[in-house]
Amino acid sequence: MTDSPDRQPIIRPVVESVDSVRASSPLVHCLTNAVVKEITANVLLAVGASPAMVEHPDESRVFAGVADAVLVNVGTVSDEQIAAIRAAVETARTASVPWVLDPVAVGGLPLRTEFARDLVGQGPAAIRGNASEIVALAGLGHGGRGVDATDGVEAAVDAARSLVERTGGVVAISGERDLIVSAERTTWLTSGHHLMPRVIGTGCSLGATVAACLGAAGSAGVSAHDAVLAAHAHIGAAGTLAGRESEGPGTFHVKWIDALYEVSSDDIGRLVEVREESA
Amino acid sequence: MTDSPDRQPIIRPVVESVDSVRASSPLVHCLTNAVVKEITANVLLAVGASPAMVEHPDESRVFAGVADAVLVNVGTVSDEQIAAIRAAVETARTASVPWVLDPVAVGGLPLRTEFARDLVGQGPAAIRGNASEIVALAGLGHGGRGVDATDGVEAAVDAARSLVERTGGVVAISGERDLIVSAERTTWLTSGHHLMPRVIGTGCSLGATVAACLGAAGSAGVSAHDAVLAAHAHIGAAGTLAGRESEGPGTFHVKWIDALYEVSSDDIGRLVEVREESA
Amino acid sequence: MTDSPDRQPIIRPVVESVDSVRASSPLVHCLTNAVVKEITANVLLAVGASPAMVEHPDESRVFAGVADAVLVNVGTVSDEQIAAIRAAVETARTASVPWVLDPVAVGGLPLRTEFARDLVGQGPAAIRGNASEIVALAGLGHGGRGVDATDGVEAAVDAARSLVERTGGVVAISGERDLIVSAERTTWLTSGHHLMPRVIGTGCSLGATVAACLGAAGSAGVSAHDAVLAAHAHIGAAGTLAGRESEGPGTFHVKWIDALYEVSSDDIGRLVEVREESA
Repeated sequence: MTDSPDRQPIIRPVVESVDSVRASSPLVHCLTNAVVKEITANVLLAVGASPAMVEHPDESRVFAGVADAVLVNVGTVSDEQIAAIRAAVETARTASVPWVLDPVAVGGLPLRTEFARDLVGQGPAAIRGNASEIVALAGLGHGGRGVDATDGVEAAVDAARSLVERTGGVVAISGERDLIVSAERTTWLTSGHHLMPRVIGTGCSLGATVAACLGAAGSAGVSAHDAVLAAHAHIGAAGTLAGRESEGPGTFHVKWIDALYEVSSDDIGRLVEVREESA
Repeated sequence: MTDSPDRQPIIRPVVESVDSVRASSPLVHCLTNAVVKEITANVLLAVGASPAMVEHPDESRVFAGVADAVLVNVGTVSDEQIAAIRAAVETARTASVPWVLDPVAVGGLPLRTEFARDLVGQGPAAIRGNASEIVALAGLGHGGRGVDATDGVEAAVDAARSLVERTGGVVAISGERDLIVSAERTTWLTSGHHLMPRVIGTGCSLGATVAACLGAAGSAGVSAHDAVLAAHAHIGAAGTLAGRESEGPGTFHVKWIDALYEVSSDDIGRLVEVREESA
Repeated sequence: MTDSPDRQPIIRPVVESVDSVRASSPLVHCLTNAVVKEITANVLLAVGASPAMVEHPDESRVFAGVADAVLVNVGTVSDEQIAAIRAAVETARTASVPWVLDPVAVGGLPLRTEFARDLVGQGPAAIRGNASEIVALAGLGHGGRGVDATDGVEAAVDAARSLVERTGGVVAISGERDLIVSAERTTWLTSGHHLMPRVIGTGCSLGATVAACLGAAGSAGVSAHDAVLAAHAHIGAAGTLAGRESEGPGTFHVKWIDALYEVSSDDIGRLVEVREESA
């Protein structure tokens, strides 16, 4: 965690990505699950983005063209939400709006697994999940029991690379260490706090923050890989700060939102460990 | 903020309205968006009202006749919710139950814009939104990008007056200063805190609180204009108090709910600035 | 509240049930209302269980067979959710997965009342509600206005016994004192704090915790009656602790989640009053 000169080339784009979200307040159209809508919106507000949840298929189709990024989280899909997601993704592709796929609980449940695998072919700019979900999405395993990650991140590296090849996008795996993979880079990130998985929606909010960073990346000259890395770093660094003041998951949740809002981009860089794997 | 004798005629009905909600615990039937249901219910409980969210069209039709007030918030309309809203409004009109329209993101999205404009003709007792939404609802502009207010409150005064003429009700615009307009009065309110828009659902919860105050107003001898003003004052004064103890939007949210519950009605009167415009 | 030897035979299974949830982390499939999904998930995480909300009828049918317990809460039923609930209950019966019925606002609204009464015939392992709901579910009264309990717990004892006879399960009534009834036992529990009803979803989360305790009970050798009692004791004891540090419902909510996570099972036993009624 020393701020050695060697870290600068890796950390500087992370800092710039965090700053770009705060400066441009990207509008993130969230098609997400019913459990985490409120925390997702609050996280987006705290990191400086503008959240919007629009679920009617007719409105979703229009809104994806106005948004700076779209989040697709399949945690509680219904037939109507599937229609809204399909409409949004179609518009996003046409309008070149980056969209993110969060394959919640893919693997264990046939309907969403088939749907999410189909979405992989629609060109998501990023995919974010835990190891079980990424393995299942890639068709290489059975996935977890619900949203628990039962595989380690290391076990999902091949699945991530396979999804990168198919989408041309970035794939991120959350775990004790996070992994961010794209065509040319493999980055490991250590951050966060052990209470984070005890608050529902911290992972889903990370997916939304990935969308926010991607939505601001283009005009800020930040690469998609760095934008995805920055989202993980911002979420994790705030977790580290919140953990220092928490007595349990209730206070952690509150302090985490505060920290997302308050932490400086430079401090984010100092609070996380980033390791770039040689190609 | 001095408690001069001149303020008394304006502030006293505000105090009475706040007290009437706490005394009678009006049942508020909320047809609101999927992002803010929890915070809306918690705000209603904190101000002393009884929240209920009933969304099946068959149940919504019945329930609106039992409730003391109905809230209609179009933030995440689905076809089923539109049916539930139509059923509730129909019952509310027949049973003379006051209902409130919150035209979230009206203007940018055709489906909800048409629906909300249609509802204007169904006699809402109050309409509450930001300037962009009020302008768009009145058919005088294009509305905001999602839920952001891009117009100033001053720019929406004519739209508010036009809606007052058409509905015979009260129209309130949220902004740096809030504006409450009815057939015979125009009132400006200054209150709140800059962190309030960083917590999702503070505006939507204000709409619910407007419904609560209207639901309690009749038997308490409070005018509709004063009930709407009181809701804004209660929400804003609690925001001012919460802001004094907050480190960010996470703690603000928590302290705001505490303050809504704890603040005395007299203190609400002292914490806000109210200015009546000469007719 | 002294830890007399007499209390040990009653309290020891409560302690064991709380520990069993923390040890085995039962997966609870929650078909619950739209207002309380987030707090329900956070409560389940805090008590040591794994929450999952899966609402598509096709997925719900599959998922109930994978889960350790199912929660059915009819607070905001839609036609699609009714289909999802029917599918989950059918699977749960076949797979002998315990399921819990929370008859929110049954009595006042015909559609859900008929639906919930029909579910009584499908063998819920436990039913949990307030006195009005239990009376209405048993067909012995009119129920409350929304979710308010207008009848005292004592007035619902006969209704509880009638439901026990029909289901062979456990029936619990929440009130100033909670009542847990099964074929052979009647237990009164005193715990909690007066701010608890001011936070939306504390009762609904109790229903989910009942499901969690039942999901862990079988392999831990805990009876269904003791599992239901333990859920009430854990929720209530955490409420007592949270109340000591709260300034209002906002801080209460946060401290309650912390306390659910932190309180030792022995302390739960010490924080509640349990009285067994002679048969």
